[in-house]
Amino acid sequence: MENIYEELKPPKRILLGPGPSNVNPRVYKAMMTPVVGYLDSELLKIMDEIVEMLRKVFKTKNKITFPVSGTGTAGMEAALCNIIEPGDEVLVCINGYFGVRIKDMVERYGGKPLIIEAPWGETVPPEKVRKAIKEKKVKLVAIVHTETSTGVLQPLEEISEIVRESEALLLVDTVASLGGYPVETDKFGIDIVYSATQKCLSCPPGLAPITFSEKAVEIIKKRKNKVSSFYLDVNLLEKYWFGGKRTYHHTASMSLLYALYEGLKIVLEEGLETRFERHRRNAEALKAGLKAMGLKLIAQEGHQAPMLTAVAIPEGISDVEVRGRLLKEYGIEIGGGLGVFSGKAWRIGLMGESSTQSNVLLILNALEKLLSESGYKVKPGTGVSAASACYQ
Amino acid sequence: MENIYEELKPPKRILLGPGPSNVNPRVYKAMMTPVVGYLDSELLKIMDEIVEMLRKVFKTKNKITFPVSGTGTAGMEAALCNIIEPGDEVLVCINGYFGVRIKDMVERYGGKPLIIEAPWGETVPPEKVRKAIKEKKVKLVAIVHTETSTGVLQPLEEISEIVRESEALLLVDTVASLGGYPVETDKFGIDIVYSATQKCLSCPPGLAPITFSEKAVEIIKKRKNKVSSFYLDVNLLEKYWFGGKRTYHHTASMSLLYALYEGLKIVLEEGLETRFERHRRNAEALKAGLKAMGLKLIAQEGHQAPMLTAVAIPEGISDVEVRGRLLKEYGIEIGGGLGVFSGKAWRIGLMGESSTQSNVLLILNALEKLLSESGYKVKPGTGVSAASACYQ
Repeated sequence: MENIYEELKPPKRILLGPGPSNVNPRVYKAMMTPVVGYLDSELLKIMDEIVEMLRKVFKTKNKITFPVSGTGTAGMEAALCNIIEPGDEVLVCINGYFGVRIKDMVERYGGKPLIIEAPWGETVPPEKVRKAIKEKKVKLVAIVHTETSTGVLQPLEEISEIVRESEALLLVDTVASLGGYPVETDKFGIDIVYSATQKCLSCPPGLAPITFSEKAVEIIKKRKNKVSSFYLDVNLLEKYWFGGKRTYHHTASMSLLYALYEGLKIVLEEGLETRFERHRRNAEALKAGLKAMGLKLIAQEGHQAPMLTAVAIPEGISDVEVRGRLLKEYGIEIGGGLGVFSGKAWRIGLMGESSTQSNVLLILNALEKLLSESGYKVKPGTGVSAASACYQ
Repeated sequence: MENIYEELKPPKRILLGPGPSNVNPRVYKAMMTPVVGYLDSELLKIMDEIVEMLRKVFKTKNKITFPVSGTGTAGMEAALCNIIEPGDEVLVCINGYFGVRIKDMVERYGGKPLIIEAPWGETVPPEKVRKAIKEKKVKLVAIVHTETSTGVLQPLEEISEIVRESEALLLVDTVASLGGYPVETDKFGIDIVYSATQKCLSCPPGLAPITFSEKAVEIIKKRKNKVSSFYLDVNLLEKYWFGGKRTYHHTASMSLLYALYEGLKIVLEEGLETRFERHRRNAEALKAGLKAMGLKLIAQEGHQAPMLTAVAIPEGISDVEVRGRLLKEYGIEIGGGLGVFSGKAWRIGLMGESSTQSNVLLILNALEKLLSESGYKVKPGTGVSAASACYQ
């Protein structure tokens, strides 16, 4: 008998990074629900209810709405690999790290990416989309709703209109927004939307909710070639999730489905609008505090996502030291910069369960102390006072 | 506030199907461990220990040994898509459902499958591999260790030798065997081995342990084209799992990693040899009982896997009725037939935590009662007596 591995006891963290966010104890408890067979009628019922709840959260009537058995990146891949066939022109809007990732995937699946770029930290101008879509026969336009690398919230209404006037499909990455900010799938006529469970839905990572419009499903059904990925092939997944006779495809992780079921219940109990308002309000307070402390936000004014705030690290301050001390002395995780902002920005997430007044006041207080001790000039209490004022 | 969804309360099942198997309460408890960031040093430590434990279970020193963030089917896909480039000749051994699935995936990734077939229920003869491998320049030979569709256990020693004499890589699907039967990765020189967590490792589904030999890794590094799947690209995953500076790739499901950590601890505490012996012994008793009742096993004599026993449904007996009553009256899940055995066979799994003497006696007793009531002639107590004798 070998027993050299210890009991699991990672310290409790206050998760204020780019995700995962803190998980509600009810969700952990749901994962204690016993595992059953992948075709057990009791599981199928739970799956049906998850689909129903996801439709509410995605604000859609789309039949093909379900969680992909993988993380948000698997959701991104499922969205792209089902639509793209070799040679397809795909318009990719890039204003941060995840736009770059979409481009990489488009190429891997044989698509031809046409790129629209905006500086990291700014939104993608609809005019650029209008121009590009006229020049080529584009099959798909892909854009990120909330760029987790910069904290930019991309307005979608105008771009959706432009894409709807063409024959192209519109794909939106809502990994960091679903459950924290309105995702208007049907209202805006978005064809493919995917997300992840560990951000504003506050479940553990491992599933990627996704939805496909009828138009998108038709295009998938008419493909000339099979989808390269068997695991993510919607034509096969449809038979397991929606078939009259449910057909085995893969063994879904019922433990993660139980977690998602409970997580979605919590979202709907709070109410979507109340939840969005909570995210908005806490983010306003955080931003007021950071600005009062003289810190500079990365995302352009007027387009800052309430779920994630990227803030420039002041000159002369050590990224690694501050984040290390936050973790060690406060148990707080915030994110480092991604891509061009690596070492130059911090990413503070207020997602799902993590979006609370007490977390806002705590992180501001902690940052002020650590920055002061590193030589940054800030009057004591500045950040917390400005944030508190927002809660009056 | 909306509250129309009930508390999760699926009934407790005795899982004697093709997986998932029953989960040890310690594993459920492990999933209550709080979620932390995907680069948290405490998580990285746990990931390192999981890698260490997986190497022991796979019996390998391979560096690239880790759990893919998806189910067993994602493991199959990761194994294939990293190796195969368009035009590559891949020798696929088919003697059941999962061999067929491998062939499908090979085609999706642009490979040219060369097929060796054996009847479902029989092993693949090494001589056929020897002949096929001489005729073409094969890049990869793929074979299933335990065919979950038939219960056949494929001997691997001779086939490994044959493949090692060529330049081809050998890939083995051990989804149903890892943790229940010896997987001799290094001893047999197998290059790529993948599995799943929900069978003989008795964890919830959602992760797919995988290992790549140095030779396989070199071939992946020298690819002409990028792997189609970003999500499963070992070149990128390596940087997250093994990089000196760990690099973000996707947000691993720490809850499932916690479960796997605990599940692997339980496997190693029991000891691999003791665990294999337990699986062997319970399967012997089950088979003795089934045969005594006059039932016919699908897998050829001498090559029956201890983890899964496929048994032919007797003439005139309703598949759906018997399985329905087993579930309803006993809370027991067994599997229906797959592929050519759909409606014609039952698949009884004795995997991981589910492989116990009491489960063997219970299923034999239940089957006897239900078969008798459906008109099948069997003397009371026949199966249980024969099984009990094996435990003397």
